[in-house]
Amino acid sequence: MSRNIPVTERVADGLPLGSPEDAAARIGDEDTLVLSGFGRAGYPKDVPLALAASERDLSLTVISGGSVGSEVDTALVEAGAIKRRFPYQATPEARSAVNEGAIAFHDRHISRLGDEVTFGHYGTPDVALVEAVAVGPDWLIPTTSVGHTPEYIHSASRLIVEVNDAQPLELQLLHDVYSRTPPPNREPIPLPGPGDRIGSSRIKFDPEKLEMVVRTDSPDKSYTFREPTETDRRIAHNLATFLADEVERNPMFASAVNLQFGVGSLGNALMSAFNDVEFGDRTVAYYGEVIQDGLLDMIDDDKLVSASAASLALSRDGQERLFADVERYAERVIVRNAAVSNNPSLIDRFGVIGVNSALEVDLYGHVNSTHIAGTHVANGIGGSGDFTRNSGLGVIALGSTAKDGAIPRIVPMVPHVDHTEHDFSIVVTEQGVADLRGLSPRERAEVMISECAHPSFRDDLRAYLNRADSRGGHIPHDLATVFDWYLD
Amino acid sequence: MSRNIPVTERVADGLPLGSPEDAAARIGDEDTLVLSGFGRAGYPKDVPLALAASERDLSLTVISGGSVGSEVDTALVEAGAIKRRFPYQATPEARSAVNEGAIAFHDRHISRLGDEVTFGHYGTPDVALVEAVAVGPDWLIPTTSVGHTPEYIHSASRLIVEVNDAQPLELQLLHDVYSRTPPPNREPIPLPGPGDRIGSSRIKFDPEKLEMVVRTDSPDKSYTFREPTETDRRIAHNLATFLADEVERNPMFASAVNLQFGVGSLGNALMSAFNDVEFGDRTVAYYGEVIQDGLLDMIDDDKLVSASAASLALSRDGQERLFADVERYAERVIVRNAAVSNNPSLIDRFGVIGVNSALEVDLYGHVNSTHIAGTHVANGIGGSGDFTRNSGLGVIALGSTAKDGAIPRIVPMVPHVDHTEHDFSIVVTEQGVADLRGLSPRERAEVMISECAHPSFRDDLRAYLNRADSRGGHIPHDLATVFDWYLD
Repeated sequence: MSRNIPVTERVADGLPLGSPEDAAARIGDEDTLVLSGFGRAGYPKDVPLALAASERDLSLTVISGGSVGSEVDTALVEAGAIKRRFPYQATPEARSAVNEGAIAFHDRHISRLGDEVTFGHYGTPDVALVEAVAVGPDWLIPTTSVGHTPEYIHSASRLIVEVNDAQPLELQLLHDVYSRTPPPNREPIPLPGPGDRIGSSRIKFDPEKLEMVVRTDSPDKSYTFREPTETDRRIAHNLATFLADEVERNPMFASAVNLQFGVGSLGNALMSAFNDVEFGDRTVAYYGEVIQDGLLDMIDDDKLVSASAASLALSRDGQERLFADVERYAERVIVRNAAVSNNPSLIDRFGVIGVNSALEVDLYGHVNSTHIAGTHVANGIGGSGDFTRNSGLGVIALGSTAKDGAIPRIVPMVPHVDHTEHDFSIVVTEQGVADLRGLSPRERAEVMISECAHPSFRDDLRAYLNRADSRGGHIPHDLATVFDWYLD
Repeated sequence: MSRNIPVTERVADGLPLGSPEDAAARIGDEDTLVLSGFGRAGYPKDVPLALAASERDLSLTVISGGSVGSEVDTALVEAGAIKRRFPYQATPEARSAVNEGAIAFHDRHISRLGDEVTFGHYGTPDVALVEAVAVGPDWLIPTTSVGHTPEYIHSASRLIVEVNDAQPLELQLLHDVYSRTPPPNREPIPLPGPGDRIGSSRIKFDPEKLEMVVRTDSPDKSYTFREPTETDRRIAHNLATFLADEVERNPMFASAVNLQFGVGSLGNALMSAFNDVEFGDRTVAYYGEVIQDGLLDMIDDDKLVSASAASLALSRDGQERLFADVERYAERVIVRNAAVSNNPSLIDRFGVIGVNSALEVDLYGHVNSTHIAGTHVANGIGGSGDFTRNSGLGVIALGSTAKDGAIPRIVPMVPHVDHTEHDFSIVVTEQGVADLRGLSPRERAEVMISECAHPSFRDDLRAYLNRADSRGGHIPHDLATVFDWYLD
């Protein structure tokens, strides 16, 4: 079945057109900008570049939906234009500036961010800067992500739209934009299943907010995924073996398996691996926050009835594959608000199996996803907490070591906690699977060492555990030496 | 308006009656028991005491809804009858046994526990042991809590019911028992507002499960609350002052304020304090996990349109007050499933202001609610994570010091994390209020020191922060000395 593209005109007549420089001039030196963009897709490009090139003395607060490209997080950072940045960044330049304290940053759960902006946790945003495939007098159609764009447009005083010819108009077939009512009388989200639609392709806005429309023609800075390593493959194999058993014995998964995988090369490798798992008569769907290349394989192989997310976080190849065949993929691919894709209630209602990676996990099941050695932020928590905590089965998947085996990733105590022992159940490494359900901390530590830690670190971990155990307590620790693993 | 009590007979004809000893004999030595009880209310009493007195060599797994009384967590512990215990304990005897490693324990988020039991995270429970005001052939009516009782009865192979004459039949007017459909096609919970009802007073069960009915006549071991201290009063005052401003400026609270307070003496003191706050035309309701005495005051003073929770965690006075006038209180008091009272989606939809206490908070906004010095468990996380993370505004309230000022409760790094920096926004101590919204870690540390830390520890905290800051990073820490505060 082929679907019609309702909108065929990029920019409606009579809208205020301008150059990127014109638009940049409408932005105040100390404005708070809320940007479209999520999973490094669907973010504004030419206006940020014009701002960066302006040689103005800028001190901007920049709030994106999630990850955006180098036009924002490299160009604007190198121009010294960003003073504050929320809730995620993913370039070396932004990371350095944040870790040096030159940019004030904080990472927040994706599911709650739209509300936090809407209800003034960051003040009133001045300008929403949004990429679209098309814009009308009081609506626009987003490009490769929906993310928090609807909430941001609603919250901001003014609106600047980049209409990007590099993003095909057919993308409108993928979107499902839905607006939640606000608390205290917020309606439940009426989404019956992972692959259903409840909204439209359009984001409505107050026409008085529309400041300028800029025509652009620049593709998203796409992801590059590394080839799966041997470790990736063994993690995927262990996870697949565990889940094949679990779906047989757990009644939650008797009729359907709804999967989520975190962003990145490991996540992408895991998706591909699932192409080979037999789920029997069960419907298999993806309900996550980004759609990566591996999911397109599963759709092409008819292994996946639907894939739902807030963004298309594809490689260049993946983009070309999707764009060349949008109408076919639109039968199964849905791009939603992040407030829907990451909604705790929907993740729970669909019984999602959420698989997310991490920097390190400790013996008792606390997870560090964000801060290297507890101090230096990598990217941000993103939606990993939304899925890890609210899934029917929360899984953390990671290699047991880093830096070619020199550094353990199963440690006595993580020096930064993003997901707690209370939040999830399963840890998978290339060594094996630790099923922590119903285990006490001492039991957890035993199984983490025997099933997940790398053999070369097991003796050291056992020695720590013995030392800690002699000090007593429900969660044994020796605080005097617990972080020796991180010290020079 | 007076309401009718539909059920007037305690035990329907023809049900298998027996003594506590008869019932105890039906429980296997190594059984997994799932108990009614939440907020130290509505838990079974005489059968646990009979088990404890039996001199059998028991090795039970005991899973309660939440906190239960000494009949379980003292008597059975002292009898050495409990091998495993989830998800909460609150007696000195249970705490000691857990911290010595004699009982395997793990604390879990209340909102997810019913599902975890239902979907086999603890195996298949053998016996549900449940207190009721009345029982029929295929239904029972719970007493002073609903908690996870419906899910536990559904999960267990067999059922033993204690019908307790000390619990008035009129309690049935308070209950709103609702059964969620399971994932992957779980319906949204259709509760329109905090004070509405969607269920019944009865929990249905498969009549083939009913093993025995035991008649009892023992009140709940009620809470005792200390008189509010000067510190409690100053915390309450600071919180009330902050919230009076917040509800004016935050559109989420323009028409309604839905409050939750954590269990305990501080929580109870905070509730009482709110009796004196002016909320203007807003409806004020309580949507929490337990109902404490302070809420009865607010109802009596017509300050509260409704109070909804999973349990009646009252003092002896509070119980007598409620029992003497159940029909009147039933107009405003609702006792629900914990899966509803603590549901992330409902807490979000109602825009709850969640106020919970903690053992300690660190400079960057991580919270330790459960483990003293990171190792020795106090009670368990309970529902504090459900509310802290999913509330429209998450607040942590605590004194700035413990042990008469000798120990700081604002510390460089908490040695156990229950709620992360990503989860909530506001910290209140008797010193002041730290509004962490939109702040970077360095900014958070400054405001935590200047607004919340006790003056006698501010210099030490600043010295730590300077030392940490010199090492760089987004969240500055000096891991070599970060836990010196806990070492002898």
